Amino acid sequence: MAEPVKILGFVGSLRKASYNKALMRTAMQLLPEGAKLEVFDLAEFPLFNQDFERTPPEIVKQFKAKIRAADAILMASPEYNYSIPGVLKNAIDWASRPPTDNVFDGKPVAVMSASTSKLGGARMQYHLRQSFVWLNMYPINRPEFMLANAAAYFDNEGNLKDEDTRNRLKDLLEALVQWTLKLKGTPQER
Amino acid sequence: MAEPVKILGFVGSLRKASYNKALMRTAMQLLPEGAKLEVFDLAEFPLFNQDFERTPPEIVKQFKAKIRAADAILMASPEYNYSIPGVLKNAIDWASRPPTDNVFDGKPVAVMSASTSKLGGARMQYHLRQSFVWLNMYPINRPEFMLANAAAYFDNEGNLKDEDTRNRLKDLLEALVQWTLKLKGTPQER
Amino acid sequence: MAEPVKILGFVGSLRKASYNKALMRTAMQLLPEGAKLEVFDLAEFPLFNQDFERTPPEIVKQFKAKIRAADAILMASPEYNYSIPGVLKNAIDWASRPPTDNVFDGKPVAVMSASTSKLGGARMQYHLRQSFVWLNMYPINRPEFMLANAAAYFDNEGNLKDEDTRNRLKDLLEALVQWTLKLKGTPQER
Amino acid sequence: MAEPVKILGFVGSLRKASYNKALMRTAMQLLPEGAKLEVFDLAEFPLFNQDFERTPPEIVKQFKAKIRAADAILMASPEYNYSIPGVLKNAIDWASRPPTDNVFDGKPVAVMSASTSKLGGARMQYHLRQSFVWLNMYPINRPEFMLANAAAYFDNEGNLKDEDTRNRLKDLLEALVQWTLKLKGTPQER
Repeated sequence: MAEPVKILGFVGSLRKASYNKALMRTAMQLLPEGAKLEVFDLAEFPLFNQDFERTPPEIVKQFKAKIRAADAILMASPEYNYSIPGVLKNAIDWASRPPTDNVFDGKPVAVMSASTSKLGGARMQYHLRQSFVWLNMYPINRPEFMLANAAAYFDNEGNLKDEDTRNRLKDLLEALVQWTLKLKGTPQER
Repeated sequence: MAEPVKILGFVGSLRKASYNKALMRTAMQLLPEGAKLEVFDLAEFPLFNQDFERTPPEIVKQFKAKIRAADAILMASPEYNYSIPGVLKNAIDWASRPPTDNVFDGKPVAVMSASTSKLGGARMQYHLRQSFVWLNMYPINRPEFMLANAAAYFDNEGNLKDEDTRNRLKDLLEALVQWTLKLKGTPQER
Repeated sequence: MAEPVKILGFVGSLRKASYNKALMRTAMQLLPEGAKLEVFDLAEFPLFNQDFERTPPEIVKQFKAKIRAADAILMASPEYNYSIPGVLKNAIDWASRPPTDNVFDGKPVAVMSASTSKLGGARMQYHLRQSFVWLNMYPINRPEFMLANAAAYFDNEGNLKDEDTRNRLKDLLEALVQWTLKLKGTPQER
Repeated sequence: MAEPVKILGFVGSLRKASYNKALMRTAMQLLPEGAKLEVFDLAEFPLFNQDFERTPPEIVKQFKAKIRAADAILMASPEYNYSIPGVLKNAIDWASRPPTDNVFDGKPVAVMSASTSKLGGARMQYHLRQSFVWLNMYPINRPEFMLANAAAYFDNEGNLKDEDTRNRLKDLLEALVQWTLKLKGTPQER
């Protein structure tokens, strides 16, 4: 029996009824067999201050420990002002420092975004991809998951009901797991 | 006598000995005649939460009022993970919301960056420029101010001593003021 | 009577039935009063070679002369491989060289794109905007014109029939003309 | 005995004394054992026209065949107007079409750039990386090879003489070969 692929997820929106939180909850339901997803809440992070990067607050220590223990990373985020939300970037900034302890180093990653706009968060995703170069993370190329006009795809309880979209999300998760196994050198039977 | 051009500045690093804070202090000394610069501290912002965008905390209200009253914006920031620091982006996210009260709308803007890396913050600046499209801000094209290998340019008290660099910074400020007057339709005598 | 605003347009696709050529033809019909649009064909450009930047081929000389005489630039282009088509970039590379004869210098510009993809050419447009910084061009911020799923909007003769989209294109042209007049310091009566 | 890793290289500048051509020649000298590099000249490509993507000119057929046969891709290019040279992008556009015959699909890739500017071609490289997402190519993250102030590093015959820079280039090639073997699932003994 193979070890499960452990995914750590986090969400760039703090809004209670966030579509991206809903995406992350949906991901939990659609995991491929043999994968586990744990979600870390970014709501309580203080603003990053480099003077404290070697003595970070408790929440940052916990976040870094969870990332270190994960095989892969899954981010869900809206796009703010054509770029990455400060909330998400602030958490990434903490976890990447100091340079000798960038816990993202070498991790496979996938990004999903939902937005009420027409582009579905695309501009945010390409900015994240540029960060991944420095962080030395390995994003999957395909599928790209950008959900435009998000309001139409969720019911009142924030459940993603559209079957096509659920399948696209499933494909994203499957691709992340396969990519993680490939980079680990694990033989893949699927 | 013409009205002064009021510039609001803020810095994307909270580090005490930040080179970008030092740049902002230097800008204060090198202002063109008839320009005023006030600096707003981003250290105490909570993380942005859209649920509270219409009832923001006091610090955000003050920030938005200062921006509204300003003729132009000046940002100084390091580059974190090849993009905008979360600290800076978080403040921008607050000030841009709700969409009907994006206080950056129509403002001229200039960006400067200092960094110990070889690119001097360039990647951060181009991500900011993409945000400016949505924010409807008008960045100057030239000069671009990116200070690589920043440590070599400041003395122990954080004073920018290099004469060439001081002149480049002066040119940036002069260009921002001229651009601001041009967009206002004010006749420029210089 | 005011001088007309002279716009030079060019298209990044050489395809005969190109949606972007169709957009440019439509722009011709929807020009604001007092504006003129001439279109330059990029089909016959050789590949750029810096060794010949001071002795460019005849077609490049003509292109540069037309740009020099124009008050504003209008580009229509598809997105190829998430970026600017080589065809379009090659023409821009020629016209920007040598640096002492960058004929785009100081010109206002607007971009429109049509694409069969979901993002409508957005990624291409943001890459162009980065080029504009170096070229010292002044793009309008709004409206952004990106037409996704383009096939649905044109009839068999390549006419843009959708009324909303025609109005959006009209708004783009109007914004470009206003921006051009503003940067010229011309009083605007509208 | 393992199969050699076959690398196909091409250069985004047509200038005779191009620094990037010089980089590519230097790469030829510094190849890791077991790697082969062939260079394809982009000088004779016509401009891409989608109408002919299924019946491309001979030179494009040859280019696509070489890419198909390669295990990895190596690009050397200057930065033009803060983005990818039209020459390079035009060749990429041809080779990626039609979508059912994108010959770059799944290929590992590395990019190097030399430039007389301060940023050494960085902005061009990040635009290429965005194209790689769509092309489904796998770029190495590290090292990034951007040579600023290029004139100082070459002798009059266009030989890269600086020892540190030669070693950085060697590291790039070694990283590309290792990454290629890893993605192939080949056990790596080094």
